[in-house]
Amino acid sequence: MSESFVFIDALLRRPVPRTPVWFMRQAGRYLPEYRRVRERAGSFMNLCTNPDLACEVTLQPLRRFRLDAAILFSDILTIPDAMGLGLSFAEGEGPRFARPVRSEADVDRLPPIDPEDDLGYVMAAVRLIRRELDGAVPLIGFSGSPWTLAVYMVEGGGSRDFRQVKTLLYDRPDLMRRLLDKLAVAVADYLNAQIAAGAQAVMLFDTWGGVLPAEDYRDFALAAARRVRERLRLGMGETRVPAILFTKGGGQWLEWQADAGFDALGLDWTCDIGQARRRVGEWVALQGNLDPVTLYADPDTIRGRVARVLESYGSGSGHVFNLGHGILPDVNPDHVTAMVEAVHELSPAFHR
Amino acid sequence: MSESFVFIDALLRRPVPRTPVWFMRQAGRYLPEYRRVRERAGSFMNLCTNPDLACEVTLQPLRRFRLDAAILFSDILTIPDAMGLGLSFAEGEGPRFARPVRSEADVDRLPPIDPEDDLGYVMAAVRLIRRELDGAVPLIGFSGSPWTLAVYMVEGGGSRDFRQVKTLLYDRPDLMRRLLDKLAVAVADYLNAQIAAGAQAVMLFDTWGGVLPAEDYRDFALAAARRVRERLRLGMGETRVPAILFTKGGGQWLEWQADAGFDALGLDWTCDIGQARRRVGEWVALQGNLDPVTLYADPDTIRGRVARVLESYGSGSGHVFNLGHGILPDVNPDHVTAMVEAVHELSPAFHR
Repeated sequence: MSESFVFIDALLRRPVPRTPVWFMRQAGRYLPEYRRVRERAGSFMNLCTNPDLACEVTLQPLRRFRLDAAILFSDILTIPDAMGLGLSFAEGEGPRFARPVRSEADVDRLPPIDPEDDLGYVMAAVRLIRRELDGAVPLIGFSGSPWTLAVYMVEGGGSRDFRQVKTLLYDRPDLMRRLLDKLAVAVADYLNAQIAAGAQAVMLFDTWGGVLPAEDYRDFALAAARRVRERLRLGMGETRVPAILFTKGGGQWLEWQADAGFDALGLDWTCDIGQARRRVGEWVALQGNLDPVTLYADPDTIRGRVARVLESYGSGSGHVFNLGHGILPDVNPDHVTAMVEAVHELSPAFHR
Repeated sequence: MSESFVFIDALLRRPVPRTPVWFMRQAGRYLPEYRRVRERAGSFMNLCTNPDLACEVTLQPLRRFRLDAAILFSDILTIPDAMGLGLSFAEGEGPRFARPVRSEADVDRLPPIDPEDDLGYVMAAVRLIRRELDGAVPLIGFSGSPWTLAVYMVEGGGSRDFRQVKTLLYDRPDLMRRLLDKLAVAVADYLNAQIAAGAQAVMLFDTWGGVLPAEDYRDFALAAARRVRERLRLGMGETRVPAILFTKGGGQWLEWQADAGFDALGLDWTCDIGQARRRVGEWVALQGNLDPVTLYADPDTIRGRVARVLESYGSGSGHVFNLGHGILPDVNPDHVTAMVEAVHELSPAFHR
């Protein structure tokens, strides 16, 4: 690969002329053009499993905003779906699994996954998006983390108190470990297949790591993420595929995370990114972390808040600008423009 | 006062023979005897505003469990209710305000509060509970923190994304500061009145501090809590009333919290209490922090998890055992017994 991407370079802490920017759920409901395709698809899962439509919505935000990366449009729960748990999305609600994992037998019954066979629609989308991007910006592949997949699989959907999955962990740590081991293999193989199909960076979304007691986060959620990392084939040198770990609510545990072998950590909006850099910036790049709710504020406020994040991180490479969580569905796209343009205008001063 | 209470002594980091224990929402729906009184009262607000019934449910958990403190049964939103915002609780939903605070005029219109006049039912309950307790254990008074009150007042109820209150903070920091200043005065006066009526410790619940970016937490939520603290009349020596600050999701900011002048910090279950002690144990006592979901697990698991919290904190005074958040409404009371008895049995070893 002869291209040089500011996004990849920042993740690898190589010098960059400005801070790259993309944002979580950038292909999403806040875009009218997304809503049109989503309607055409009929259901969210139809959209995910149709490579042409997934490619189309992946590219949409790049046409509007000066972004430095595309992220594969998909769901974090494709793996348990491929394992036969029966994923569905009720309108206006979260994901549901028809057959949750509750018992030892349920765990043992989970089949291994062959990503090219079982999740071929994802790999087809990755190949198609790479072709359509034609080198303009790099493509990020992703997966839910083993712990986050386990949460949905055991709860059978979203949860407020995580009663089922935590009770399983507390009462049967051995069984939780078996489940996470299986998922770590599946997730790593899935990400490796995305890399083989063309993903130029990969990100592990640990959406629910932050709901655990510290010790359990380390011994279960993070331990499983580390097993994923150990199995990833990221390559070296020019073709190195950086790996990012994002744990929502994980700001207390950055030192542990920085030791898990990922190139970069995603930060939610509650972290002070400058403090985070002082804690772990010697080992990892940092991605984040504007509060998504900021995008409801005035464009001038947004610009001021972008400046604060850039100033807090300070001078030098190792920062990828992002929101601290996914963009909210009813944000005004013009406000997104204000954010992205502010990063373009203000960040070069931090790279002289 | 000539009694010596293990709860008060631990908060003031004086030597104690064992670790005291109480837990948040200990007077609550998980108790069948509470549900009976609640039904008799007709509504949650009727229960809060009737001193006899509030006293009765305050005392209920003390009859079942060997607890070291009683906590006034009340709601965290009594102040905005007294300010005329029209608080109600729809069955199965959270609190609602009929007249949310959205504009400059709304903020300026908020009346000052005279706690003895406007919240006389709370003071009557405090006096009655003190009389009924008759020195058995100390009584904790409490209030929602200014920021947490502001969240409910601006949102008009609970929220998932805190869009209204954060947008107000981001776009109009001056107006948010005026609102928080007003609330800090009201909260401090309210807690001082509870102390005058007989509360022997006070606790400030900052339920929503953890949803803010770090800098905003410090400059708004914590700054307002500090203003409350500065206005509190806690006394000195034998009659000292310890003050506790609890910020859910605040584990990243313990150093800042420890500098706000409270005697103790409440920790949610995501903190490692041993790490927290190493960070701030020189300045404050710590209260917490078993994951409330633990109480769904087997009694043996519960006992093991209690042991872990005690071991993590380690030897010496300065620890009040508690849950990391309120008890969940469908917990089996026998599991609570397992937790409380484990603290009684295991903790003396840490105080030799």
